[in-house]
Amino acid sequence: MTSNRKTLRVGLVQQACTDDAEINLRASEAGIRAAAAQGAQLVLLQELHTSLYFCQHESTELFDLAEPIPGPSSDFLGALASELGVVIVGSLFERRAPGLYHNTAVVLERDGRLAGTYRKMHIPDDPGYYEKFYFTPGDAQASSAGGGFTPIDTSVGRLGVLVCWDQWYPEAARLMALAGADLLLYPTAIGWNPQDVPEEQVRQRDAWVTIQRAHAVANGLPVLVANRVGFEADPSGQWPGSQFWGHSFVAGPQGEILAAAGTDPDLLVVDVDLARSENVRRWWPFLRDRRIDAYGDLVRRYRD
Amino acid sequence: MTSNRKTLRVGLVQQACTDDAEINLRASEAGIRAAAAQGAQLVLLQELHTSLYFCQHESTELFDLAEPIPGPSSDFLGALASELGVVIVGSLFERRAPGLYHNTAVVLERDGRLAGTYRKMHIPDDPGYYEKFYFTPGDAQASSAGGGFTPIDTSVGRLGVLVCWDQWYPEAARLMALAGADLLLYPTAIGWNPQDVPEEQVRQRDAWVTIQRAHAVANGLPVLVANRVGFEADPSGQWPGSQFWGHSFVAGPQGEILAAAGTDPDLLVVDVDLARSENVRRWWPFLRDRRIDAYGDLVRRYRD
Repeated sequence: MTSNRKTLRVGLVQQACTDDAEINLRASEAGIRAAAAQGAQLVLLQELHTSLYFCQHESTELFDLAEPIPGPSSDFLGALASELGVVIVGSLFERRAPGLYHNTAVVLERDGRLAGTYRKMHIPDDPGYYEKFYFTPGDAQASSAGGGFTPIDTSVGRLGVLVCWDQWYPEAARLMALAGADLLLYPTAIGWNPQDVPEEQVRQRDAWVTIQRAHAVANGLPVLVANRVGFEADPSGQWPGSQFWGHSFVAGPQGEILAAAGTDPDLLVVDVDLARSENVRRWWPFLRDRRIDAYGDLVRRYRD
Repeated sequence: MTSNRKTLRVGLVQQACTDDAEINLRASEAGIRAAAAQGAQLVLLQELHTSLYFCQHESTELFDLAEPIPGPSSDFLGALASELGVVIVGSLFERRAPGLYHNTAVVLERDGRLAGTYRKMHIPDDPGYYEKFYFTPGDAQASSAGGGFTPIDTSVGRLGVLVCWDQWYPEAARLMALAGADLLLYPTAIGWNPQDVPEEQVRQRDAWVTIQRAHAVANGLPVLVANRVGFEADPSGQWPGSQFWGHSFVAGPQGEILAAAGTDPDLLVVDVDLARSENVRRWWPFLRDRRIDAYGDLVRRYRD
């Protein structure tokens, strides 16, 4: 039995955002510094942490928020990664070309280098979450049939970075695991419609926790989720705004919750034992028995 | 909005088994009759309910437990289905040919007809669960790239019947949902190694509940799970035996628990609102956004 622990200390920054990018980035910086001071080797930020969650309405002016990658924010995070000697996973609004934008995660190596990017593959479009207007579905590092679902190698492991809406898709988690991801990481921005009844709000958050814990179970690896907090109004007034529910968490490879935040700004610093994944996969060898001969229809829209 | 309720009353029989098939089948019958008396229209039995969970060791003599389908047990269940006017989902050890056996679910229509069968697709082989010795991986109704994962049409809906180890595979649930399944049903036989510490036992059961709730979430449909209870010794003495953990449950299409049993024999009778699946899928339209252009590697063993 592989019993040697292989501990990775991870930090998750859960923050509220404002309409001032500088303030937001400084709040992220404070969280990253605090995590590093507590020995974190890897820090995960929430989705689109430099801005409000601007997708509550559609406005061409908001494309001004986007920036190239590499660009000012990734440079800032890279400098911080280098100074502190930590790997940082951030989430930015990427301007790739005029009229071509993505929701992109960036991974900064502890030497400050941009280790890789992941462009959000599944893009939602629902009341209050008009992302299809802003973000082209991802294709980062697409070079195979699993194109776009490519983990990023770092000094702390192979990171299966996915973003928010991706978290509802078992296919995404599986493709990252099949590519050797050691961890799954989900920068997230999800909240409640304040007009929903409390029971519905509980069901939604439970579903969100449950499906991500299940990715840990199905694939025998830890899962890290960082979500924003705070109420953000819809400037257009069409939507009652979003109450972001926080609840950032870390789950082990059996889906067990190792730590979870509440609905206030918070910093989680947690030890994850990567050697445990090896043990759990020996006990529950799900990858051994996949019926790849019978999964062909997974690439169909519907089996009708 | 689709607000009309479309209620289906379901019954789940959770039982302990003995080495006497007659006693076991009578216990199932009692549960089915009680469920029908309470108005259930669909009754789910646990995995291999006519016998002990015999896969704790490997013995050629145990193939004597198998029977053809149709055969005595499916005939018995069919007669009961017809008498009571309920749809019954059973789970049998199928003898298909000399040297060719399956772990097979049977669906009996309320007129007694065999509506269809499902042969367990994912077969485990772990200490105490030597199923690869007994069961050939399934191929029931295999006629397409999703061969084997074919739901069964009945008067109460299209049933996505899967069996036990299948429950750990998001691919199986997805293929059933893509084929129009209205419900997922999992006859199950899963238990603890009595020598595991309580914390490990809790983690295992939580993982099992979590991943099946997640199938409901990912696919926007209700999930029914019937598991056995009781301690069963390993006749070979190689394994400390299995303490089957019961905890049969019904989850709605957001993964919300509608009812759950404990670790004693039990009968759950629960109203499931099938119209709610339509609503939940409108709120969370995951099927809309699947990246089928990038899922090709799901049919690979590993992306190396």
